[in-house]
Amino acid sequence: MLEDLWLIGIGTGSPGHLTAEGAQALRDVAVILVPHKGDDKTDLAEIRHRMIAASGTTAQVIKFDYPVRDPAQPYLDRVDAWHDEIALRWQAALADAKVSGPVAVLVWGDPSLYDSTIRIAARLVPQPSVRVVPGISAIQALTAAHVLPLNTINGAVVITTGRRLREAGWPYGAETVVVMLDGMCSFQHLTTDGLTIWWGAFLGMEEQLLDHGRVQDVAERIISARQLARKEHGWIMDIYILRKG
Amino acid sequence: MLEDLWLIGIGTGSPGHLTAEGAQALRDVAVILVPHKGDDKTDLAEIRHRMIAASGTTAQVIKFDYPVRDPAQPYLDRVDAWHDEIALRWQAALADAKVSGPVAVLVWGDPSLYDSTIRIAARLVPQPSVRVVPGISAIQALTAAHVLPLNTINGAVVITTGRRLREAGWPYGAETVVVMLDGMCSFQHLTTDGLTIWWGAFLGMEEQLLDHGRVQDVAERIISARQLARKEHGWIMDIYILRKG
Repeated sequence: MLEDLWLIGIGTGSPGHLTAEGAQALRDVAVILVPHKGDDKTDLAEIRHRMIAASGTTAQVIKFDYPVRDPAQPYLDRVDAWHDEIALRWQAALADAKVSGPVAVLVWGDPSLYDSTIRIAARLVPQPSVRVVPGISAIQALTAAHVLPLNTINGAVVITTGRRLREAGWPYGAETVVVMLDGMCSFQHLTTDGLTIWWGAFLGMEEQLLDHGRVQDVAERIISARQLARKEHGWIMDIYILRKG
Repeated sequence: MLEDLWLIGIGTGSPGHLTAEGAQALRDVAVILVPHKGDDKTDLAEIRHRMIAASGTTAQVIKFDYPVRDPAQPYLDRVDAWHDEIALRWQAALADAKVSGPVAVLVWGDPSLYDSTIRIAARLVPQPSVRVVPGISAIQALTAAHVLPLNTINGAVVITTGRRLREAGWPYGAETVVVMLDGMCSFQHLTTDGLTIWWGAFLGMEEQLLDHGRVQDVAERIISARQLARKEHGWIMDIYILRKG
């Protein structure tokens, strides 16, 4: 019976991102649920397993398979069905194990930021008590690597997705925009003049890539570097910040 | 001679927020610059000193006094002059010490988020090499405590300040708004209907306070709790998230 579910933010791949609270939580859980194979992002699975081993935890590691998203469904329906299915798979994976004690799910970055683990947890029946352990997000890894304040003085920041940026363009009145989950280099389609971009991929990892400059000057270079790195590693995770002026 | 300056994010008061990278950085520096007395926020000074002691670092701790901001100056000029003065005080504090090795400044939360330490560091002459170690921000401590995803699915998030919210009202088209640095409970002046608020003060600390609900239902309660806590502790740090619907 799953009574306590802990969603532990582990940062973006650097073992140094794990917090003292996160490390202690890994040692305190009875079970750690980890995705099996997943979508060929073997580097991520390896990082997760190295972090579990390094923590000195004695927790049982239980694997589950991620479902496949149905590309025929509209976007929000597809995401919804996918979350339903993951919750069922967690429960199925735990059903055979005699769980007594908290169960952990390790979350890339921070569990609250463009991650759906909290929403998946909310689908569990009966509803367990959910604890969130915050972790270093990709945004923070990006600003740290560039030594860049996210906001200007008294300035606002918009965090959005590649999908929204393509659909809605530059957010109205925005000065600084963070773009998450953008597999399509959507910055290249913006018609806004005078934008500067700070880009990063594999943030916090040994493979980390960084670039920055005026969008008009560096867009092609970033697109090429991204394609090359994706080909080399079989996957890529990247985000970027855009600022006017 | 200050060659390497490390800005270390220490999270929001919980010792558990410190990352492995942050803890290692504390042990690797030669000097830690800490504010002396500051503005009567003695709890903060204590947390900082406890964290330094717990890290096992042998670094020399050097204190500096924060300058006072001139309330007669316009806001941006005042902030600008204040940052200039802090940079001078860092240099003066270090001038007498024979610094050989990296110098650390501990930053509440994350050095990139509504914090000016990076901007102050950029004023140093000659310019040292600056390293940023990311830390858990107040936003993350808030969402973790409320078990709240910061964004809705494919939704955007605006991070802004109390000052901007008062001056410009609800950000155009925004769905989720994070309000930082708001000493005036600016949510009470919003005319937007149907807003939900998730509020937190002293996040991550033993004194942590949380509340949430529809703004119209809980605004008075939050204002009272804030006043009471501020009176009791002599200071308060709080932030909140607003979402439509």
